[in-house]
Amino acid sequence: MASSELTTPADNNAVEVTPADLGVALERLRTESPLVQCITNIVVAQWTANVLLAAGAAPAMVDNPHEAGEFARITGGLLVNLGTPYDDTTEGMRAAVAGANEASRPWVLDPVAVGGLTWRTGMATELLKQQPAIVRGNASEILALTGGTGGKGVDAVDDPEAALDAARQLARDHGSAVAVSGEVDLITDGERVVRLANGHRWLTQVTGVGCALGALMAGFAAVVDDRLVAAAAATALLTVAADDAAAPSLGPGSFAVALLDQVALIQPDELAEQVNLR
Amino acid sequence: MASSELTTPADNNAVEVTPADLGVALERLRTESPLVQCITNIVVAQWTANVLLAAGAAPAMVDNPHEAGEFARITGGLLVNLGTPYDDTTEGMRAAVAGANEASRPWVLDPVAVGGLTWRTGMATELLKQQPAIVRGNASEILALTGGTGGKGVDAVDDPEAALDAARQLARDHGSAVAVSGEVDLITDGERVVRLANGHRWLTQVTGVGCALGALMAGFAAVVDDRLVAAAAATALLTVAADDAAAPSLGPGSFAVALLDQVALIQPDELAEQVNLR
Amino acid sequence: MASSELTTPADNNAVEVTPADLGVALERLRTESPLVQCITNIVVAQWTANVLLAAGAAPAMVDNPHEAGEFARITGGLLVNLGTPYDDTTEGMRAAVAGANEASRPWVLDPVAVGGLTWRTGMATELLKQQPAIVRGNASEILALTGGTGGKGVDAVDDPEAALDAARQLARDHGSAVAVSGEVDLITDGERVVRLANGHRWLTQVTGVGCALGALMAGFAAVVDDRLVAAAAATALLTVAADDAAAPSLGPGSFAVALLDQVALIQPDELAEQVNLR
Repeated sequence: MASSELTTPADNNAVEVTPADLGVALERLRTESPLVQCITNIVVAQWTANVLLAAGAAPAMVDNPHEAGEFARITGGLLVNLGTPYDDTTEGMRAAVAGANEASRPWVLDPVAVGGLTWRTGMATELLKQQPAIVRGNASEILALTGGTGGKGVDAVDDPEAALDAARQLARDHGSAVAVSGEVDLITDGERVVRLANGHRWLTQVTGVGCALGALMAGFAAVVDDRLVAAAAATALLTVAADDAAAPSLGPGSFAVALLDQVALIQPDELAEQVNLR
Repeated sequence: MASSELTTPADNNAVEVTPADLGVALERLRTESPLVQCITNIVVAQWTANVLLAAGAAPAMVDNPHEAGEFARITGGLLVNLGTPYDDTTEGMRAAVAGANEASRPWVLDPVAVGGLTWRTGMATELLKQQPAIVRGNASEILALTGGTGGKGVDAVDDPEAALDAARQLARDHGSAVAVSGEVDLITDGERVVRLANGHRWLTQVTGVGCALGALMAGFAAVVDDRLVAAAAATALLTVAADDAAAPSLGPGSFAVALLDQVALIQPDELAEQVNLR
Repeated sequence: MASSELTTPADNNAVEVTPADLGVALERLRTESPLVQCITNIVVAQWTANVLLAAGAAPAMVDNPHEAGEFARITGGLLVNLGTPYDDTTEGMRAAVAGANEASRPWVLDPVAVGGLTWRTGMATELLKQQPAIVRGNASEILALTGGTGGKGVDAVDDPEAALDAARQLARDHGSAVAVSGEVDLITDGERVVRLANGHRWLTQVTGVGCALGALMAGFAAVVDDRLVAAAAATALLTVAADDAAAPSLGPGSFAVALLDQVALIQPDELAEQVNLR
């Protein structure tokens, strides 16, 4: 874990990311409509594709070992999500990460439920060494990646702030931005730390919101060089849209539908205006 | 099949399950938010997770053979659904059922489309010997498990009442509660028989309602000892919510969305009040 | 590619398919409710099943190699979709196509993303030789099947008209109807050519609309002998429903929900009246 001496100066740089940066990132995503290759789980594949389409990106779920590496060389960004890994899709992950790295495509690691489960924790540890542009998880998962205690299944049991030091360490060790999802989302590149305080409790009652967030980060990383900005723009898009979606909704079902609408409808200037960036 | 001499006394005990029991069960589900491990099919995984989240449970789709057994030892309840089985997920099912039994976790068998298809029928027969807490299916599937004729694909072609004797026999032979879905749902533990007459025809036009019902039963079995009550509470939750969801809906699309809302919104006392328990 | 001398007479026969034919096809689909076996991808399986249910057909996602061939002998129609192929599901595809052909069941090939990806292009080429009743894709995919250039992932980069000659050639070589999706959908059986000009831009922002269209074609082919009519009826159903769904919707989320409602609500005479058939 980083000592407080190491972390203090980084906090001083947190002002570097501005709301305007996030608006510009969304504008680029809509203009360039990057291909986002997703190797993700059977639970959230449809939802993830629909969130990417609503945002303006072009999803492509190429996850078999025969094609994943080939496609990663031409994708804009790549998501590797460990939600429901199988022997063949983990081979696909390895091939895709190798292909993405060879072709200098940014890729995002979402280590779903690591810590609590042995096999995927080994897989996450292996993948982590392959220089992900962004690592995204809840506090439990981020803590588990640095050897801390895992959570209860796929649910976060820790506040993002409890994972700040672990996130910063991960970011420094692997050259990645690390995003910790929670009530106040926290993102760091090891030096800078940004916090976003938008969103609604129903986000935790719709399966795959975190998974779709990882996919959006891969999309933004395809069009924005600064990985911290890419991760923050994805987080802002989904959580600001959630603020707008919650008001007219009755429960988690209508909220999920309205969330897709709002992800599609929100304009770059509105994103910059509504984001609660700290 | 049970003779009528054997079945008559059981009917006399049907009054033992009360609407209040179902309300209490829902209260417990919301309070304890049990982990529900689902080894289910690619069609309904997202829907199932969203129904569990709306109800108040914590879904975890851990279905690969490397981890399914490990996770089953710490889950609250387990669902094994034969919708789209593959070689690796059936290995996951075997490992999970063994793990659940070792750790005394209740598990639910949903034998989707057995009877009509050879391989899964063998798999269902094998799993049935491993003491599921609850077996849930339509009349065709329940009949097929006792050697009767299977249905047309995944659709029920028989009235639940036609499967009453088969359900009772299954329940006695395997120590399970057996739930038969249909216009009037029928559930038995071999002695007691309960019938629930809520629901709407659109439930048959939304894929995965039965599959999600099996998952809910695993969730309720994690928090309620009486398996008959667990199965009945799950059935009541989904079908009473359907009554409330149908009114403002135009068709099966908006109905599915409203169903998720209502599963989340319904309160324990409303469930007890609205359930049509016979 | 066919020369213009060959294509001119075919255009003269295009009047043979009438709006009334499409209304009759929908009436039959609702009356006969055919089983539609889908070997499709993890992204769209739920959506595809819900579209089939809304339309009035009976979906069955039997895709494992142990059962796919067995089930194809009793299905009404079969969809083979190459969205997320794996080693086991491609074995399932081979078995299902063999079974369908032996039992004279019509089957539809949806060659998702062929051209850009080597393995599935080989698989599509192999399957194409097994006499699909209908081949459905976007212009890039149809061009790729005849050796043309593939597209950007799963997105169409070409106007359907650019694939007319390729579609006609494919249809003649394989005895299939070939459907090319786009702003104006184009369908040919090698002689006749029909065009349908309904639909809304949001159809491209909902994942799996094209995949569900292929499944609907398999359903219509189960109840209508003329494959061109079957493909046109499926296209009309989904795009006319889209016209009705777009008006009250805010964005792609609410549009997808309304689309399911409208697919269920539209009546045969309304379909015939609203379709823009050329």
